[in-house]
Amino acid sequence: MLGFMGEFDLIETFFKRPPRHATLGVGDDCAMLAVKSGQQLAISSDMLVEGRHFLSTVNPAHLGHKALAVNLSDLAACGAEPKAFLLSLALPEVQPQWLAEFSKGLWALADLYQCDLIGGDTTRGPLNICITVMGEVPADQALLRRGAQVGDDVYVSGHLGDARLALEVFRGQMSVPQPVFDAARLRMEMPSPRVALGLALRGLAHAAADISDGLLGDLQHILKASGVGAEIHTAQVLSTMACANSAGLPAEVLLPLCLSGGDDYELVFTAPEDQRSAIVAASEAARTQVTRIGKITASPQLTLLDSQGRLVANTFSSFDHFKTP
Amino acid sequence: MLGFMGEFDLIETFFKRPPRHATLGVGDDCAMLAVKSGQQLAISSDMLVEGRHFLSTVNPAHLGHKALAVNLSDLAACGAEPKAFLLSLALPEVQPQWLAEFSKGLWALADLYQCDLIGGDTTRGPLNICITVMGEVPADQALLRRGAQVGDDVYVSGHLGDARLALEVFRGQMSVPQPVFDAARLRMEMPSPRVALGLALRGLAHAAADISDGLLGDLQHILKASGVGAEIHTAQVLSTMACANSAGLPAEVLLPLCLSGGDDYELVFTAPEDQRSAIVAASEAARTQVTRIGKITASPQLTLLDSQGRLVANTFSSFDHFKTP
Repeated sequence: MLGFMGEFDLIETFFKRPPRHATLGVGDDCAMLAVKSGQQLAISSDMLVEGRHFLSTVNPAHLGHKALAVNLSDLAACGAEPKAFLLSLALPEVQPQWLAEFSKGLWALADLYQCDLIGGDTTRGPLNICITVMGEVPADQALLRRGAQVGDDVYVSGHLGDARLALEVFRGQMSVPQPVFDAARLRMEMPSPRVALGLALRGLAHAAADISDGLLGDLQHILKASGVGAEIHTAQVLSTMACANSAGLPAEVLLPLCLSGGDDYELVFTAPEDQRSAIVAASEAARTQVTRIGKITASPQLTLLDSQGRLVANTFSSFDHFKTP
Repeated sequence: MLGFMGEFDLIETFFKRPPRHATLGVGDDCAMLAVKSGQQLAISSDMLVEGRHFLSTVNPAHLGHKALAVNLSDLAACGAEPKAFLLSLALPEVQPQWLAEFSKGLWALADLYQCDLIGGDTTRGPLNICITVMGEVPADQALLRRGAQVGDDVYVSGHLGDARLALEVFRGQMSVPQPVFDAARLRMEMPSPRVALGLALRGLAHAAADISDGLLGDLQHILKASGVGAEIHTAQVLSTMACANSAGLPAEVLLPLCLSGGDDYELVFTAPEDQRSAIVAASEAARTQVTRIGKITASPQLTLLDSQGRLVANTFSSFDHFKTP
């Protein structure tokens, strides 16, 4: 009976499929994964907690998508090709309908990237989703944070700020027309990991990071790791916001969403000036919009400039789970 | 200030050390791990939730030990050598003293096995500890559940039932002398992963599993995966209990603790009869007690026999997070 579904039935029903890459999947003490010669394994883990990373009202299929997407986004940032993941799940109770929907969203994205679910854990507890993802990248081609060089262009993929716009509307802090909200909400609940772009940037980008805590905070990780600074053009950043034009909100309200909103799961990366046409080609090959937003500088500051080249005070703080209210 | 410690300070202070095996550790979007030629990666994940897997009063250093130990136990069951792990941590608040103690217990065990902490996640939320561990095992030498053969001896490592005895005392269901409780509590809070034994059993054991949900339940996984049954001698199982002799409790009270108590983190494994002296040698080399408790049978039942060879009714149910109260 589903109402009395136990731990092992739950795994059998919703989370067990034969692996494509792994030599052993769900069902033993460990999964087994062989790594191809010349490749190294890129590994990352993200934990999602109700009320922090998602609202209790979220569509479970969207949540299944998002839980894997935010992990794939870390692989994308390193230029790694997804291979396998483990899912650990704490559930307050077994709700088969919820699990069916959640796993549907999860599998849809996993299938898209042929990423095997090879193990994990289930337990009773406050809703918590922890995924560890693994991908392959040739040993000398991983995109890291520490490679940015003075004179590099700075780029972002896709659209910034829309996810945070949706959150602010949910919180009652902002108001936008329904179609704008619907689009922004989809960006918040179903981010697109930029895996294809990450792969296309191998050998091109000097440094990359994914944007989960907000552009400025995640760019700072690159700057700090590389010992450089950057000049960023706020108008270019604002132009990436998909919902901005139709939202009817002024730039000063939208700018913080793009610069430090968080939950974007886009890539910020740097590449040398002489690779501009190659970056355009990579963007086209990956069918992912890329916007040039500034330059890497020798002076270690992160400087913001408006469309007239005037300094914009950087009062934008990035998301921190223990500092942000 | 520690009182306002953020996510990144927390990681820097407590959870960042240079890796020994991994080519890239904590601090980028992904960690990077190279796998030696001829080896495959064994991977497992366990999630620990307050009130389910540990009590709120637990010594944080013991908890740090246990969170990693239960994961290393999965590697041990597969005969894999620990290499690296990721730690994802949801915390209700940042308590530097708690984190200092927790990380101390974690590092002590990680150092013992030279297992690198290479990544993870931290977030605010109800206390939850999710670790993913990775180890190496030669492609053809992994110990799996599915290899048991008719006629194999069945063995368990170390001591069964003591962890559950401690839990029952905590719950007020049993009463034992203080020194017995202290010893049992240490077994519950600081289990010893049988990594050395797992490595010594490569090429010897036909099948193995770790005992986390209780001996009978975990042995059933081996039987089911191998399409066989087993005869188990309850007196031999009871003899493994370290605290039994001094506890002054009758066998009928202690037997369920050993057969289905859970939280033991011992290994149950099978090996052919002609390897008995090799198993003794492996036990000595690994400095780990091993007890022969029965035999694998062609008939698919799991049969329990007492010291006179009489059938013991199997009314022992193993732990299930969604079925066990």
